[in-house]
Amino acid sequence: MTTIDPHERWKPHGRPDYAGLQSFGARPYTESVDDLDGVDVAIVGAPLDDLVSDLPGTRLGPRAIRIASNGFAGVHLDAGVDPFDALRVVDFGDAAVIPADPAASHAAIERIVGDVVDAGAIALVLGGDHSIAEPDIRACAERHGPLGLIHFDAHTDTGRELWGVERSHGTPMYRLVEQGHVAGERYAQVGLRGYWPGEEEFAWQDERGITALRMREVLDRGIADVLAEAIDAVGPGPAFASIDIDVLDPAFAPGTGTAEPGGMTSADLLWACRQLAAQLELVGADVVEVIPSAPLATTDITASVAAGIVHELLTGLALNRRY
Amino acid sequence: MTTIDPHERWKPHGRPDYAGLQSFGARPYTESVDDLDGVDVAIVGAPLDDLVSDLPGTRLGPRAIRIASNGFAGVHLDAGVDPFDALRVVDFGDAAVIPADPAASHAAIERIVGDVVDAGAIALVLGGDHSIAEPDIRACAERHGPLGLIHFDAHTDTGRELWGVERSHGTPMYRLVEQGHVAGERYAQVGLRGYWPGEEEFAWQDERGITALRMREVLDRGIADVLAEAIDAVGPGPAFASIDIDVLDPAFAPGTGTAEPGGMTSADLLWACRQLAAQLELVGADVVEVIPSAPLATTDITASVAAGIVHELLTGLALNRRY
Amino acid sequence: MTTIDPHERWKPHGRPDYAGLQSFGARPYTESVDDLDGVDVAIVGAPLDDLVSDLPGTRLGPRAIRIASNGFAGVHLDAGVDPFDALRVVDFGDAAVIPADPAASHAAIERIVGDVVDAGAIALVLGGDHSIAEPDIRACAERHGPLGLIHFDAHTDTGRELWGVERSHGTPMYRLVEQGHVAGERYAQVGLRGYWPGEEEFAWQDERGITALRMREVLDRGIADVLAEAIDAVGPGPAFASIDIDVLDPAFAPGTGTAEPGGMTSADLLWACRQLAAQLELVGADVVEVIPSAPLATTDITASVAAGIVHELLTGLALNRRY
Amino acid sequence: MTTIDPHERWKPHGRPDYAGLQSFGARPYTESVDDLDGVDVAIVGAPLDDLVSDLPGTRLGPRAIRIASNGFAGVHLDAGVDPFDALRVVDFGDAAVIPADPAASHAAIERIVGDVVDAGAIALVLGGDHSIAEPDIRACAERHGPLGLIHFDAHTDTGRELWGVERSHGTPMYRLVEQGHVAGERYAQVGLRGYWPGEEEFAWQDERGITALRMREVLDRGIADVLAEAIDAVGPGPAFASIDIDVLDPAFAPGTGTAEPGGMTSADLLWACRQLAAQLELVGADVVEVIPSAPLATTDITASVAAGIVHELLTGLALNRRY
Amino acid sequence: MTTIDPHERWKPHGRPDYAGLQSFGARPYTESVDDLDGVDVAIVGAPLDDLVSDLPGTRLGPRAIRIASNGFAGVHLDAGVDPFDALRVVDFGDAAVIPADPAASHAAIERIVGDVVDAGAIALVLGGDHSIAEPDIRACAERHGPLGLIHFDAHTDTGRELWGVERSHGTPMYRLVEQGHVAGERYAQVGLRGYWPGEEEFAWQDERGITALRMREVLDRGIADVLAEAIDAVGPGPAFASIDIDVLDPAFAPGTGTAEPGGMTSADLLWACRQLAAQLELVGADVVEVIPSAPLATTDITASVAAGIVHELLTGLALNRRY
Amino acid sequence: MTTIDPHERWKPHGRPDYAGLQSFGARPYTESVDDLDGVDVAIVGAPLDDLVSDLPGTRLGPRAIRIASNGFAGVHLDAGVDPFDALRVVDFGDAAVIPADPAASHAAIERIVGDVVDAGAIALVLGGDHSIAEPDIRACAERHGPLGLIHFDAHTDTGRELWGVERSHGTPMYRLVEQGHVAGERYAQVGLRGYWPGEEEFAWQDERGITALRMREVLDRGIADVLAEAIDAVGPGPAFASIDIDVLDPAFAPGTGTAEPGGMTSADLLWACRQLAAQLELVGADVVEVIPSAPLATTDITASVAAGIVHELLTGLALNRRY
Repeated sequence: MTTIDPHERWKPHGRPDYAGLQSFGARPYTESVDDLDGVDVAIVGAPLDDLVSDLPGTRLGPRAIRIASNGFAGVHLDAGVDPFDALRVVDFGDAAVIPADPAASHAAIERIVGDVVDAGAIALVLGGDHSIAEPDIRACAERHGPLGLIHFDAHTDTGRELWGVERSHGTPMYRLVEQGHVAGERYAQVGLRGYWPGEEEFAWQDERGITALRMREVLDRGIADVLAEAIDAVGPGPAFASIDIDVLDPAFAPGTGTAEPGGMTSADLLWACRQLAAQLELVGADVVEVIPSAPLATTDITASVAAGIVHELLTGLALNRRY
Repeated sequence: MTTIDPHERWKPHGRPDYAGLQSFGARPYTESVDDLDGVDVAIVGAPLDDLVSDLPGTRLGPRAIRIASNGFAGVHLDAGVDPFDALRVVDFGDAAVIPADPAASHAAIERIVGDVVDAGAIALVLGGDHSIAEPDIRACAERHGPLGLIHFDAHTDTGRELWGVERSHGTPMYRLVEQGHVAGERYAQVGLRGYWPGEEEFAWQDERGITALRMREVLDRGIADVLAEAIDAVGPGPAFASIDIDVLDPAFAPGTGTAEPGGMTSADLLWACRQLAAQLELVGADVVEVIPSAPLATTDITASVAAGIVHELLTGLALNRRY
Repeated sequence: MTTIDPHERWKPHGRPDYAGLQSFGARPYTESVDDLDGVDVAIVGAPLDDLVSDLPGTRLGPRAIRIASNGFAGVHLDAGVDPFDALRVVDFGDAAVIPADPAASHAAIERIVGDVVDAGAIALVLGGDHSIAEPDIRACAERHGPLGLIHFDAHTDTGRELWGVERSHGTPMYRLVEQGHVAGERYAQVGLRGYWPGEEEFAWQDERGITALRMREVLDRGIADVLAEAIDAVGPGPAFASIDIDVLDPAFAPGTGTAEPGGMTSADLLWACRQLAAQLELVGADVVEVIPSAPLATTDITASVAAGIVHELLTGLALNRRY
Repeated sequence: MTTIDPHERWKPHGRPDYAGLQSFGARPYTESVDDLDGVDVAIVGAPLDDLVSDLPGTRLGPRAIRIASNGFAGVHLDAGVDPFDALRVVDFGDAAVIPADPAASHAAIERIVGDVVDAGAIALVLGGDHSIAEPDIRACAERHGPLGLIHFDAHTDTGRELWGVERSHGTPMYRLVEQGHVAGERYAQVGLRGYWPGEEEFAWQDERGITALRMREVLDRGIADVLAEAIDAVGPGPAFASIDIDVLDPAFAPGTGTAEPGGMTSADLLWACRQLAAQLELVGADVVEVIPSAPLATTDITASVAAGIVHELLTGLALNRRY
Repeated sequence: MTTIDPHERWKPHGRPDYAGLQSFGARPYTESVDDLDGVDVAIVGAPLDDLVSDLPGTRLGPRAIRIASNGFAGVHLDAGVDPFDALRVVDFGDAAVIPADPAASHAAIERIVGDVVDAGAIALVLGGDHSIAEPDIRACAERHGPLGLIHFDAHTDTGRELWGVERSHGTPMYRLVEQGHVAGERYAQVGLRGYWPGEEEFAWQDERGITALRMREVLDRGIADVLAEAIDAVGPGPAFASIDIDVLDPAFAPGTGTAEPGGMTSADLLWACRQLAAQLELVGADVVEVIPSAPLATTDITASVAAGIVHELLTGLALNRRY
Repeated sequence: MTTIDPHERWKPHGRPDYAGLQSFGARPYTESVDDLDGVDVAIVGAPLDDLVSDLPGTRLGPRAIRIASNGFAGVHLDAGVDPFDALRVVDFGDAAVIPADPAASHAAIERIVGDVVDAGAIALVLGGDHSIAEPDIRACAERHGPLGLIHFDAHTDTGRELWGVERSHGTPMYRLVEQGHVAGERYAQVGLRGYWPGEEEFAWQDERGITALRMREVLDRGIADVLAEAIDAVGPGPAFASIDIDVLDPAFAPGTGTAEPGGMTSADLLWACRQLAAQLELVGADVVEVIPSAPLATTDITASVAAGIVHELLTGLALNRRY
């Protein structure tokens, strides 16, 4: 048994945020599959940025999100549940990515998520660029069958290729649908805006029955209404949630590589994440495209809201009572 | 007489923002109690961060807020009043805090606020961590009797202790109520969210009759409705306003030590501060938990909105016409 | 012919954001008037900050906005039009400003904008402090006659002088109206807040028939309603749009010299810019007061939203079909 | 057994710098005393800044130094030894510090260092403000007898009190000598400069036989000559090395709270640390006063040189062959 | 009498660095000429950047240097003198500069320095861009006669004009020599490097008998030898020292507008400043071209070394015993 | 003809640093091979970071170096030559790199450098991670025959693989020697330090006759002596200079991905670059591993010294008189 519990040394008070082992939410940390026994949710890092088209830096995301995650613990003031009480959550460490070898890194991500799913747990994956959705969703789909997908993003990420490159942070959703791992008609996108992709991609989306909900609709109809439509589209059955941090307005998440002004507020996104986790049958989720943008001695608001998203997902899972 | 007027040297134009004595809002600066005669409001700094549980740095808050305060001067476009015209405001400098001696520093804060109140003026205190609310509110309550309290914050700050430490930035409100300086049934909290505190603290709050208004209600009902409820709860009689900058979403106030995503907008908070100062019988206020987060050559948005809060309080006081 | 097309070397994929010639939106770059033939819109930089009263740095704005502009290309998801497809847009480089010689720099700005207008194109000017509005609007008005003006800003910029200085970033609109280049009754301001200017300036504004729409109204009535009023005020006939980035809340645009908390969201402003460009008869526009505030290796959210504003203006122009 | 080996998952290549468990130098991580068996050196964090007189932030130092330590591994190019090969090194985590309770935190530091020494290992302590030298040296001295001390610093840290506070980052060396834990005549200071302390403190130093080597001497005589004198002064017998990062010029270590320009270069200090570890009989060492000053996505040069110092100490220990 | 003594409120310990009135070195602050009576040295700010050719921001220099100056107090470890004990030093505030009006600002600088000199004190001026040397040296020369000048800088600043502008940060020394305020044959430059100015300027320098000592000579001969030559050149009689912070390598002073790699170290420059102040007959000095480059919560190494330079000048003046 | 001359619009003064087309050193900019006719030196960007093992961001290097290059122009104060006068230098833009496709990007780099060499010009390549040395040196070697190589770096970059990846920023020099493009016995490394590579790599280096000069030797013998040895080793015949910015101490170049404390000073490296360019028969050079680390509104000291290195190389080439 190789699990380390960050609270052990600080009994009975619990670890201060800035001290001790920096696991997600100060959860027990392990790198051994044996320790996944009985675990409800395993946090996994996917530190990768080899497949981006703009600013790099998401390889540094998982570490930053873990550091930012310390403040999130206790009973959720609105939901009335403490997810760390309701669920057994561990930090399972990072996938064994290989610098400058994205194929090997994708394989490592698929392997570690597969281990989590094989152990009967839900994987919450900290990215990493959005290309990681391909291996992490595939690892889930190969074990649960084709998945429903709820996808928050400024962009659809359904390109066939980007700059002629097929495995990219702009293409995972196209590939997953075409591979049969995501069911098009159970796939909903929320927060789309800006100037990408183009007609060809949207035509393909229509063919596959994908529900594309633009940011304009969030602004006009409100998040509750739009989220209800997205949750309806995904419906019952195993589902995955993929949250690209750039769905937020850059004011709320400046640390990302393809920021698009005019996006969601943190309050809306955090609420939506809790709701979807409470209502869908999530088998996994990822939070991607976080680039640390602040000194360690300062609040990194992007990493902080990313950690908050994970915690709202956990809270929703705790409410869900399927576990 | 030791008052220095920063505008003197620049007559008739007034001092540029970046030049000359950096008093709050370019107000006359004095450290002598004698100069408080006839003053309506005295700005006081409480540069302290000895009692925080997370990121330090609020000891640097008062200086940063003063620097950021320069742009705020003139007739308020909505309120139609120039608070520096309607009220005699001075900058009374910082409490004589002692590095690494929080007890002595609290005593100094209580002393300086007491001097202001004794002189018949309202103290607006620039924090500092939220522990300063204990001495600054006590100084007011000892002279005005038990106070009503309106408290904007992501957290209730009503812990009995934090990490076993009783004097802390997480406990001032518990202590003030228990000490009889704040009347529980005249105490309203606005903006609560996240995962702290827990059942025990909320049970105590209910016992004491405290009104706890969550951020969720601000989002659902709007700030006007929630503020009205809070102002009703506080009601007539001497009152204090305590504004923890982390009530704002980190997008609006990244420079703070326990940021909690999903919070208020600056527009809502600024408006609320003016309203409450206009409607309540404020005897003092503090703005706390500001950590400078930007170079001097850049807009520090946290310090800037904190300065704006102070100015809206002043504007509300000017509207209040009780002075 | 001296135009350079940044896409040429990367055919057929187009230039990556971070590589190659950093023209606005990767548009063809030229400094020759001859190349303006047949051009619909020319982007022009006005790198100036000699006339500010607070933080300097806007001389670095045009370069930063160009760098941030790379992500904006393709069909607008809401508008269904690709402005670079619908319009012939070039980057015409920067005005030949002279360091520490604001008069010469203003002359250079007036000259370059005049060249654009003489070529029959619309000038979109990247500031620069707001003083540049005087030469750039004058250059348009001298060729199109007195203009309507829609002006987004926290401040009216209608001072007679600032610190006794008449040519300033706080006075351009007063001067343009008094010079007859802007028609007061066709001039609408949106987003005003804070404590400047005072009664004298507002009295003059009333005399000239200027429509002043405060931020309070945007918060209370919504942007759609307020924008409709502003567009009505400007009405038909040649018009100019002047967007001071400080109309945004500092959370959305921290990189500016006279930030005023409590402002607009990016989503509202971006939408408004597209609408006004689609509905008015714009002969030019400027986006001003942007100070780069982030490292090159990070998203500069201020420059990014400024680039987005330009792109929404272009999208609106493309919808406008007057070109 | 609760040790986690960060290299396990990445076999045979070893962990990339930015991924996986962020233990110091990717060493096995444990919080159990049982795992110290057979260990030569244990890295220990002392995340504390409650006792500073200037800028806070050193509570964030240990985490930052660990993150920066990743690049240091392999055979030292000059020394020809791989310290991780020659010595069994573990990361023993952080002392169980308590926020806002410096007495409890000092006790925790003394306890954890005591555990290391009891296990027969050398403790390398990552600060934290310099007050931690008191508990960490005391823990060693209580087990090894009065120690020799080599102390790199801009300041002597031999005040009797600072602002009337006796336990402070300005007083540890006075207290340790007076407590009998450091032998005055075996105590050498290197790098002193600036304006502190005063005559009283230097008179006391002379009485105690302390060797005070100013920065001026390093500049005039060279580091080799000055270091030889310091090593001579310490001589044989158990010794401790205390490295205040502010002995470096702020150009080399900007992230510190009481920076003093005109200091040492990294090259000199790194070399000196290796030499002293190779020549003295070190029973422990600390590296203190590091405040993270750069974003996670950037080289934090202060934390990086601090990590380098630790690695040179390890290299010197490996050369020392006493282990 | 309007002097405020920042130590008064903190008796007997003195003010902490981060608290209270931020005068230079916590010296008594006054804006009244009457308070200059009996003063040996008055610190004066010249917050100006209207006349730069590159990055702006030096208008923010004086405030940043004052903030950084707090750590400098006590007996100089090498010189054995406490300048604040030996000399009566006050902070006389900033010149009444006018935003966007460099001529008025220069007049204000000349006036305030003149007031200091008229009171029989030495003026130490905190810049501001190097153009301020023209009014501050002229104010001294008009009262003391033509001055010797020792000038540390990467550039000679002896252009006739820059971009056709005669009053500029690149021209003050040419103008002062031509105006007869600086005696060419008593004028020595130290630290020149890079690619400016050209043959014409150097020819003029030779004509005027100016001693130009390149950085190459500092590197080859050492600072002591080069400084001796410079001091010899200036010789007896009233003299001024002008220190452009860019004489330092950008590693030691990144916060400046025309940084030139390959420059001096802080240790050399600090030593030189003390020496020259001790040996020459200084009637004034300025430290210029400092742009704040770090958050308030961090060490600003440029402002810090600038404050150190002022303090070494004061220490040298104290040694000089002419006062 | 598609060359654009940035000075054209500003005649006769020349372009200010912050305005106009941001070509290297404000040189004429072209992307057409035809314009290379008669050119002595072409600046080429290689914006790539796909092959790093640590911090990414060097894809942003060329743009940052160009921005920083503006200050370098005129007659070199020590060398007495203006390289832009002596040599015809153009900025040939960036290689047509493809995001996330390092093989294609390497091919593009090889192609653009080949074009420069084919035109009879010297290529100065702005990196980019150090992997770019493989294609850029190969492009030169294929046209000039096996090259001598002078290589400044903290690391040898002669790994056979890194993490199992053969094309990497840690392997180019191994590959170039093995491919026969660099002659081992004419290859000198300067500045090595730290803990990488290991015995195997150094054994291979010895076999190939490579001269490895450690940083220790620069510190002990001085740069002049060490450089002379390196230049001797390279000797006559076509040669290439590869400058990894991490040869500098992180104080002088914090913006790099594998910083190693204890390195060279800027003054030494700048001098060495000029000397080697003056004495060797350079056919090309690259400056690599620069990550922008400062806001656009601030001096980026890493990019600035990188630009200075290029300019010293140009100055040395101008002195060389082989062109």
